[in-house]
Amino acid sequence: MSLILAVNAGSSSLKISLYQRVLEDPKAPRLSLTSTISSISSPPARVSFQQHPNLSQAARHPNPSVPSIRDHESAFIYFLDRLKADVSIDRQQVTHICHRVVHGGDYTEPTVISEQSYHHIETLSDLAPLHNAAALSVIRACIHALPLALSIAFFDTAFHRDLPRHVSTYAIDQKIAQERGLKKYGFHGLSYAFIIDMVADHLHKDKDELNIIALHLGSGASACAIRGGKSIDTSMGLTPLSGLPGATRAGDVDPSLIFHYASEPLSRLSYDSAMSKEVHVTRAEEILNRQAGWKALTGTTDFGEIIKKADLSTPPSVAIGDPCTLAFHIVLGRILHYVGAYHLSLRGKVDALVFAGGIGERSQDLRSAIGEAVNCLGYSAIDEHVNQGLEHHEGSVVDIGKDEGGNRMLVCRTDEQFEMARECSLGDAFWR
Amino acid sequence: MSLILAVNAGSSSLKISLYQRVLEDPKAPRLSLTSTISSISSPPARVSFQQHPNLSQAARHPNPSVPSIRDHESAFIYFLDRLKADVSIDRQQVTHICHRVVHGGDYTEPTVISEQSYHHIETLSDLAPLHNAAALSVIRACIHALPLALSIAFFDTAFHRDLPRHVSTYAIDQKIAQERGLKKYGFHGLSYAFIIDMVADHLHKDKDELNIIALHLGSGASACAIRGGKSIDTSMGLTPLSGLPGATRAGDVDPSLIFHYASEPLSRLSYDSAMSKEVHVTRAEEILNRQAGWKALTGTTDFGEIIKKADLSTPPSVAIGDPCTLAFHIVLGRILHYVGAYHLSLRGKVDALVFAGGIGERSQDLRSAIGEAVNCLGYSAIDEHVNQGLEHHEGSVVDIGKDEGGNRMLVCRTDEQFEMARECSLGDAFWR
Repeated sequence: MSLILAVNAGSSSLKISLYQRVLEDPKAPRLSLTSTISSISSPPARVSFQQHPNLSQAARHPNPSVPSIRDHESAFIYFLDRLKADVSIDRQQVTHICHRVVHGGDYTEPTVISEQSYHHIETLSDLAPLHNAAALSVIRACIHALPLALSIAFFDTAFHRDLPRHVSTYAIDQKIAQERGLKKYGFHGLSYAFIIDMVADHLHKDKDELNIIALHLGSGASACAIRGGKSIDTSMGLTPLSGLPGATRAGDVDPSLIFHYASEPLSRLSYDSAMSKEVHVTRAEEILNRQAGWKALTGTTDFGEIIKKADLSTPPSVAIGDPCTLAFHIVLGRILHYVGAYHLSLRGKVDALVFAGGIGERSQDLRSAIGEAVNCLGYSAIDEHVNQGLEHHEGSVVDIGKDEGGNRMLVCRTDEQFEMARECSLGDAFWR
Repeated sequence: MSLILAVNAGSSSLKISLYQRVLEDPKAPRLSLTSTISSISSPPARVSFQQHPNLSQAARHPNPSVPSIRDHESAFIYFLDRLKADVSIDRQQVTHICHRVVHGGDYTEPTVISEQSYHHIETLSDLAPLHNAAALSVIRACIHALPLALSIAFFDTAFHRDLPRHVSTYAIDQKIAQERGLKKYGFHGLSYAFIIDMVADHLHKDKDELNIIALHLGSGASACAIRGGKSIDTSMGLTPLSGLPGATRAGDVDPSLIFHYASEPLSRLSYDSAMSKEVHVTRAEEILNRQAGWKALTGTTDFGEIIKKADLSTPPSVAIGDPCTLAFHIVLGRILHYVGAYHLSLRGKVDALVFAGGIGERSQDLRSAIGEAVNCLGYSAIDEHVNQGLEHHEGSVVDIGKDEGGNRMLVCRTDEQFEMARECSLGDAFWR
């Protein structure tokens, strides 16, 4: 029996799921257990460790804190120890480990970790500063702790490999762009790959005839236009910074903003280029990736809390005063910007608008507001009975649109770990 | 009789129009003559000097070069001399001079130039490096050469004064944003103000009931969503850099791109933050404002030439090879991105899509391609007979849509100089 670990390292979290490969049905690996370790960078870390099929039951208990976890590496070792202690699985039984790697650069397929590929991923850390570094430290820990298992990197960028050239090209010197690989890569690809599979299944369509606008909305958020099962545009770019705002990420800003933001204190709107305005990339990344987003606007990374405090009952006035109301309308407006743009990219031929990710799956009020806006484009009105009570509906995909025709409005419970395990399981012959 | 000069200083050009204020109809100042001085920064400069009503006739003659013009200041003095020599107008007869100033910062109304306002505009030069500096040197020349005339600054940002706060706010620390005035200002406001007036008139609608998507497409290009005669979103931001690509401007890029572009030569996709990657704002502005855009992609700033060379007959393949075809599809795609987004911003209630600016008014093939794409949103199909023969249709606004219903497709011959002269003429009581 092959056991597959799927590892998803965030900037301060580690999600690990254990799957059994099923010989007779390799495209459906069976979930054994899942563990989430959070607050790694602000200790004590908190750990959930849940065996299937009692996942949702266990989730109701508060997660205990584990002071011994100091970083992603010790978090991973802690998980292996729990595997042995709680469910008697010896670490040697794990044959495959799938690692989510945010930026894959030129890699367009999953790649077995070797010294060479490890080094290459390392050089890309700068382009995905919130993620690649965390993934690398777990990969290192894996190679030490499980030297016989195969570690495979799955890249979020790979899904967007077929972006049309006029979409992926920035309007800059192409000699320099090609030398340095400066183009739109796009991210959240594992999530979008999962979404396509599930939505095609749900709509009884062939994947390569599926046109959707997918919204992966979490603390990192992006939108993707998918035509015939392939990405034709997406909101993130060279790095995950551009596009939609995130919990601590600015999203699209004027490319010169960072210089005026990070320079020495000047008076209001007084820009004197004689003053020093040299900015280092790590400072720029720090400000735009970690000190911005709705946290900077409201003080919290929890979008659910923002929605609770925001005034959603009145249309946005020209001068919104309340920070939570402002943050909500900024996020809503930026999402609609991409939905409108991608609706036209797809020439109006859209099977469904799909909500996914922590916020996409949990924020019914955000979905309602988006639904109301896109109704004019021919999308089905939202059935609020279903939308508000999503927890009563099982399955990976739930249709929240009214049953009266129109492009569908769907929620997809996306699962990046499953997507990796599935691809690993299907491609098994290749990995050996 | 009041004579009004309207001065429009570009990075390398100076356009000046002379108007007579008409007491009985102050909203329609009468054009006397117009002069365009181009190639100022790559001498010899070329000068056209055309008296109304023979403007179009004179335009057919090649413009003579004038070696004595070295900068915007000497260009302006040359114009004043020609005024005296060719049409016997003494410079003392000019009572008002309107200056187009691209970035107005906090100014939301036209402003008489004083020492204080001059200094304030100077501090904003950094935010509009291609334009404000040129305007300032002409303002200086004016004050010296015409000390008795009133110089008034008209700001391109002022039109967007009513942008909703959730649209103008970047998802960044608001304390720093407010201290430094870091928000979306928007540009091309004089052009949009002119367009609204003319299109409302053409459609027999009240200005404050007019909903349009306006495209000002020139060597600088932007899009604007206008609801009830007011700007509710626009593609340029803190500076004119963001949004659509221009002749030498990158438009939207990942905010971290500049650091990877401008750093010391590194190998392909090898990003090591230990390497020096400090970038100065003037270097960033230089690269993104002057060394990018379709010039960087094709070698020419002339979009007409690009269209001539591009292969428009086949749909864009995933891997376009030819630079002109690539540049055309990049520009087309980015324009459609904003049209789709703004169509949804206006909830589909759009009276017209309006093309303006040098490229918007002259590139029938670009208009055809946009028209074909937006047809799915309910815009009238383009009447190619009118679209291809626009020069046979007079007036500020020409309807290029077929006469079969649908949101209108219009071309507006925009005129920023006239807009300034009109506003100046109407507000005359205020200026004295």
